[in-house]
Amino acid sequence: MDASEKPRTLPHIVVVGAGFGGLTFCRKFPEDAARITVIDRQNHHLFQPLLYQVATAGLSAVDIAQPIRAILRRKKNLEVMMAEVTGFDLAARKVIHDRGETSYDYLVLAMGGRTSYFGHDDWERFAPGLKSLDDALEIRRRVLMSFECAETESDPQKRRELMTLIVVGGGPTGVELAGTFAELARTVLVRDFDRIDPSKARVLLIEGAPRVLAHFPPDLSASAQRQLERLGVEVRVGKHVKAIRHHEVEMPDGEIIRGIVIWAAGVSASPLTQQLGVETDRAGRIKVLPDLSLPGHPEVFVLGDLVTLTDPKGQVVPGVSPAAMQMGEHAVKLLAEEIRGRTSTTNAAAGRAPFVYWDKGSMATIGRSKAVAEIGRLHFSGYPAWMAWLFVHLIFLVGFRSKFSVFVQWVYSYLTYKRGARIITGATGTPPAGSA
Amino acid sequence: MDASEKPRTLPHIVVVGAGFGGLTFCRKFPEDAARITVIDRQNHHLFQPLLYQVATAGLSAVDIAQPIRAILRRKKNLEVMMAEVTGFDLAARKVIHDRGETSYDYLVLAMGGRTSYFGHDDWERFAPGLKSLDDALEIRRRVLMSFECAETESDPQKRRELMTLIVVGGGPTGVELAGTFAELARTVLVRDFDRIDPSKARVLLIEGAPRVLAHFPPDLSASAQRQLERLGVEVRVGKHVKAIRHHEVEMPDGEIIRGIVIWAAGVSASPLTQQLGVETDRAGRIKVLPDLSLPGHPEVFVLGDLVTLTDPKGQVVPGVSPAAMQMGEHAVKLLAEEIRGRTSTTNAAAGRAPFVYWDKGSMATIGRSKAVAEIGRLHFSGYPAWMAWLFVHLIFLVGFRSKFSVFVQWVYSYLTYKRGARIITGATGTPPAGSA
Repeated sequence: MDASEKPRTLPHIVVVGAGFGGLTFCRKFPEDAARITVIDRQNHHLFQPLLYQVATAGLSAVDIAQPIRAILRRKKNLEVMMAEVTGFDLAARKVIHDRGETSYDYLVLAMGGRTSYFGHDDWERFAPGLKSLDDALEIRRRVLMSFECAETESDPQKRRELMTLIVVGGGPTGVELAGTFAELARTVLVRDFDRIDPSKARVLLIEGAPRVLAHFPPDLSASAQRQLERLGVEVRVGKHVKAIRHHEVEMPDGEIIRGIVIWAAGVSASPLTQQLGVETDRAGRIKVLPDLSLPGHPEVFVLGDLVTLTDPKGQVVPGVSPAAMQMGEHAVKLLAEEIRGRTSTTNAAAGRAPFVYWDKGSMATIGRSKAVAEIGRLHFSGYPAWMAWLFVHLIFLVGFRSKFSVFVQWVYSYLTYKRGARIITGATGTPPAGSA
Repeated sequence: MDASEKPRTLPHIVVVGAGFGGLTFCRKFPEDAARITVIDRQNHHLFQPLLYQVATAGLSAVDIAQPIRAILRRKKNLEVMMAEVTGFDLAARKVIHDRGETSYDYLVLAMGGRTSYFGHDDWERFAPGLKSLDDALEIRRRVLMSFECAETESDPQKRRELMTLIVVGGGPTGVELAGTFAELARTVLVRDFDRIDPSKARVLLIEGAPRVLAHFPPDLSASAQRQLERLGVEVRVGKHVKAIRHHEVEMPDGEIIRGIVIWAAGVSASPLTQQLGVETDRAGRIKVLPDLSLPGHPEVFVLGDLVTLTDPKGQVVPGVSPAAMQMGEHAVKLLAEEIRGRTSTTNAAAGRAPFVYWDKGSMATIGRSKAVAEIGRLHFSGYPAWMAWLFVHLIFLVGFRSKFSVFVQWVYSYLTYKRGARIITGATGTPPAGSA
């Protein structure tokens, strides 16, 4: 048989990570141009922007998670593998994982970020972060258990501590958590308990920068702080916590605040970026070339929270899901063209189009009817911003099975102030303080 | 001040356990007749009859659980306490728990059952039972993870073992699990995977008695077995497993079957029954007096799965939720009458009305459109039985917040054969065999 008659084998693309970047790549890549294997250590894609709602018992885990296999079921030439990637052999073009290794022609790295404690890894067990479903369920468990313990605690000082929640970090996640917890205590839990008064729960938000939501314009930061304070949240800005211990935080002036501690102060790129032999920033993010490729490896693309990049327009690309999705689309466009046009990739990186971020605006929600939003030059606060936030997130959930369920839960929650997801599961983890 | 002028303090009833028995008691007891404290170690009531649907990824945890505080929010003179009861002081009328102790005038015991391994407690870690939400999530995790591992397993023998599910125990729970797993593999998972063929998954149901559903009439047992076999389940009756080890079961003839093992063979009463100094049966259930009171303690009532009793009609009261609920109502009636009529409880037990069980029928579901039902002298199988089962469970869910959500999930699942709850959470527990 003549070798030239053999059907041309499709190149093999390995995508590591099925977050917004990786998943967008998989969904948009033309099915007939390559075989794709997507590897993730979880079996589900997570709708990260609503993770705080699982932590605050507003939504249940399945509302914001969807099996990767189900999302990509209809894609031809695509395989899903649940495995933990442990390393790369860039020279031999192989991904190494706990189920073996997988060879590639092209590699797309989209492992995303993880909670970072800025070198204080010992703080992790005292102050969980919020990156996975398990994190969210753990935070929910700690908060609800702590209120349960307060209900039977006779010492007023201890009871007060069990009803104190300290959120470290005033970025969007910290603001969302603090606002929603304050609201949960004052409107929902307040009707659940007999002896304690959850409306007296103390919620603190501690931020090292001079203002919350430091990446937003100053007027919106100020508005966010006012809206938080109206919910009863104590906002302390310009304070870096000095230490975190079991059930307590030490402030720079030595003040000790006791309560449940949640960490929302730092995110860094997956530690796998350290194995690639390229330059990274302090948060482990890769300094990619303008086309999103790995320096020296035009066959490797890097997406989303793994990337630090200033685009040709001078915009610093933020670590948000729209940016990750746009990067996924950019990589699809470049790679599909090259594979079809048989462009040599050996020195292709130089001639490729650079990635340009399209900033659709930013928003952060603070509670029911409370939010801030920046869309172009327009700044919104309060109810209009919240409506915009609600609208954008419902649109984003398109294609996501749980859209209807999320909508039902929200409407239900909005109308009744009940929280359907207030269930404690899992007996593992640190017991609430004061229970000893 | 004259003592006779003091407002009469209400007697204090402590209810231990917020399952069907305890919760019915709390809901039905007249608010003005006593103060009630209900103690449970979980913060939620569980709709046990649908727990197998959480294990088989058909429903999510919140669909079948509801916070106890939310259910009983509107009851006056009632407090909910989340605590683990560790013992009783019947002479001093005190309940001892991990948050302290609570005195009572009347005590209602409704702690329910737990998985029993018939003295083989070492089997527990190899073969989880199905009594709590955490159990259900653990079983789901094991099964889904095992299929994920099969997908990347190259050894055909190991792959086959990773796709083998062994359910030990052919009562209603075992039949429901085996039938639903077979259906899940053949209709849902079959479309998720690329390399393995989940329709070739092997599901075994092993029962020690000569037939499955031994408490049902023989014709329905035979029908259930036929319906299971039609789904591809291998049913082995009259076989007591000899041993259970990591990822394998040893049959009486020495045959070794390797696969994921799930235990549905035994339930016993809460071990707290052993502390009461009264006679119990082999499964730890209390031989109560005909009025449901504890022998020698007319101020203590025992409900639900804690009880072994033959009623005046000669019916052995079964360990099912309708029986527990009827017992709760019976205790309400007797206690409310006594408290209002100031009947002395010292020797009241003798004069009290005995509990009579009203058998509304029994049903077990096997899969989509497959079930058996016995209502009086009528025996149903297949589709009519399944419709009856569906109808009864929807009616039962009345008052339960999740009714609408369960209904939506079911309809969705029925129409599309998708499973929205196919999410793996929690990294704890035994790793699936073959992954090492």
